[in-house]
Amino acid sequence: MKHNFGAGPGILPHEVLKQAAEAVVDFNGTGLSILEISHRSAEFEAVLAEAVTLVKELLNVPEGYSVLFLQGGASTQFAMVPYNLLPDGGKAAYLESGVWANKALKEAKYFGEAQVVATSKESNFTYIPKDFEIPADAAYFHITSNNTIYGTQLHKFFPSPVPVVCDMSSDIFSREIKVADFGIIYAGAQKNMGPAGTTLVVVKDDILGKSGRKIPAMFNYQTQIEGGSMYNTPPVFAIYVSMLTLKWLKAKGGVPAIEKENEAKAKVLYEEIDRNPLFKAVAAEEDRSYMNVCFVMENPELEKPFLKLCDEKGIVGVKGHRSVGGFRASIYNALPITSIHVLIDAMREFAEKNK
Amino acid sequence: MKHNFGAGPGILPHEVLKQAAEAVVDFNGTGLSILEISHRSAEFEAVLAEAVTLVKELLNVPEGYSVLFLQGGASTQFAMVPYNLLPDGGKAAYLESGVWANKALKEAKYFGEAQVVATSKESNFTYIPKDFEIPADAAYFHITSNNTIYGTQLHKFFPSPVPVVCDMSSDIFSREIKVADFGIIYAGAQKNMGPAGTTLVVVKDDILGKSGRKIPAMFNYQTQIEGGSMYNTPPVFAIYVSMLTLKWLKAKGGVPAIEKENEAKAKVLYEEIDRNPLFKAVAAEEDRSYMNVCFVMENPELEKPFLKLCDEKGIVGVKGHRSVGGFRASIYNALPITSIHVLIDAMREFAEKNK
Repeated sequence: MKHNFGAGPGILPHEVLKQAAEAVVDFNGTGLSILEISHRSAEFEAVLAEAVTLVKELLNVPEGYSVLFLQGGASTQFAMVPYNLLPDGGKAAYLESGVWANKALKEAKYFGEAQVVATSKESNFTYIPKDFEIPADAAYFHITSNNTIYGTQLHKFFPSPVPVVCDMSSDIFSREIKVADFGIIYAGAQKNMGPAGTTLVVVKDDILGKSGRKIPAMFNYQTQIEGGSMYNTPPVFAIYVSMLTLKWLKAKGGVPAIEKENEAKAKVLYEEIDRNPLFKAVAAEEDRSYMNVCFVMENPELEKPFLKLCDEKGIVGVKGHRSVGGFRASIYNALPITSIHVLIDAMREFAEKNK
Repeated sequence: MKHNFGAGPGILPHEVLKQAAEAVVDFNGTGLSILEISHRSAEFEAVLAEAVTLVKELLNVPEGYSVLFLQGGASTQFAMVPYNLLPDGGKAAYLESGVWANKALKEAKYFGEAQVVATSKESNFTYIPKDFEIPADAAYFHITSNNTIYGTQLHKFFPSPVPVVCDMSSDIFSREIKVADFGIIYAGAQKNMGPAGTTLVVVKDDILGKSGRKIPAMFNYQTQIEGGSMYNTPPVFAIYVSMLTLKWLKAKGGVPAIEKENEAKAKVLYEEIDRNPLFKAVAAEEDRSYMNVCFVMENPELEKPFLKLCDEKGIVGVKGHRSVGGFRASIYNALPITSIHVLIDAMREFAEKNK
């Protein structure tokens, strides 16, 4: 039994994996694999429609928004957002709260001015900057809701005079949000929604078509909306598994229910980190992420032996990102609290041995 | 037992599907699903490396070319090709041999002049134009090697004074080609290589970096080459299944062996179409595709009853594309000749009943 704390592609529910494996051999009794059916078949059209409906239900998406399943990950959105929203000679505002925010910012510069309203780069992104103004003449304001590498998370979104574009790759579906506060929400699937290979985009229809740019079909949200995420062949399997995962989430009670679980999981783990003399948390307390718990050791020489102990206990994926070091426990929706307890027990056992 | 003649996503080898299903539950004994492992894990890096090696072996890719697994399908390549190769104010040459060629052409117009060197549009693309000149001042010459919708295929490539860019989505790995004759080869995976969700790109390194354009990271071949197809999270599962499919192909004797099979499959099916009084082939004889066999009925009223008979025999995916009508039997690498015989028997039985 493995306890998968990997940062992504991350853990998926066991029952989803089982159903996905069956569909790879025989999809819904069609006698064909989900991998070899037409995306224009009634069977797959039903899958896509259900996935869209589940997103709308789970996030309470209001009227006037479109839900898309695209390809290319959040990194493609980094470029698609300014391509669609930033007029020639225009300006966009970015909050620089980590490496991914910085990458998004860099892509915007291919299309116009990208103004950094605030950064926490000087502290290696251990906190979320909060004291800044969003320029009212910006085409949009871009934020990253959860910073996977540094273990920080926006627990309160900023009121904005311009449309807010949010990269929610690592915390979508983990907590309640108000979609109406956003112009665009996008998220690579591979943390809380499904396998790598599809990207969820929720876009407010009336912010489109204003940049004056001529945009190639695949990079144009409008084309993708008109094509119902099927302008070309979509990533059938990644969408199917995402649909199964969203169905699993709905059956669990949806986002409010999982949010409670996620809070409980994060709480006990941070408590142990704060209590245990060998470990310390990396992020500013008020910005601690409920998805990626980053912590280091007071004595870095003990890191390797602790990783060895984790390995023995079936705890995988807890090595920290190279730019932070130490450990990162990614505790996405599908990770059961029992796995958290296994990790906590390992931390206690290790502290006992090394006191 | 189904006989899958679908145009794509198309049939995959049974043993590949079985192995893929196992990996969705437990990948190579890791205790984790292939859907929830890190793309930076040694296990997945080995998968990607093997996939690249298999492409190089199977296509005899010479030195000086890079092999990429990207996302977004051939439709994204329609835009990436001019983004990377067409200088501002420059010109590209296109052979308009079908709807997909036309779509590629349209995307090029976002970046510069796209000159149609020849078209068969006036005949609803029933043949491949052959009498034309490729302008020596074009940045590249774009062709589609196989036209899925119309059932035509280039059986001889054109000598070109400029780099040839070829969309091989529907016949890659089906026959021997000389990669050195091409500047870029690209192909959506979902016909002969794997499931929907990844796109193979084979690019000659020295044609890049000459357009003078500043290109966003994800749309820039150079970034993708430097990142080894992992500039961002790749479509892990689609690449894994592609690797398994290429391994299956290698074990069968590689491209020369499958080419013989494909020729034999196409031959018997076209012979039946030519012989059977109820059916007639759509494409010009010399341009007939060995991948997509398009045929119609002398009496269109018999189409529905024939589709019904196909359905009874487990023959799926033979309905023709709406722009051609009639039938299309896609006979990709993984389709066994036994399925061809089932189709031929159905055609004979139907002709017997309706004479």
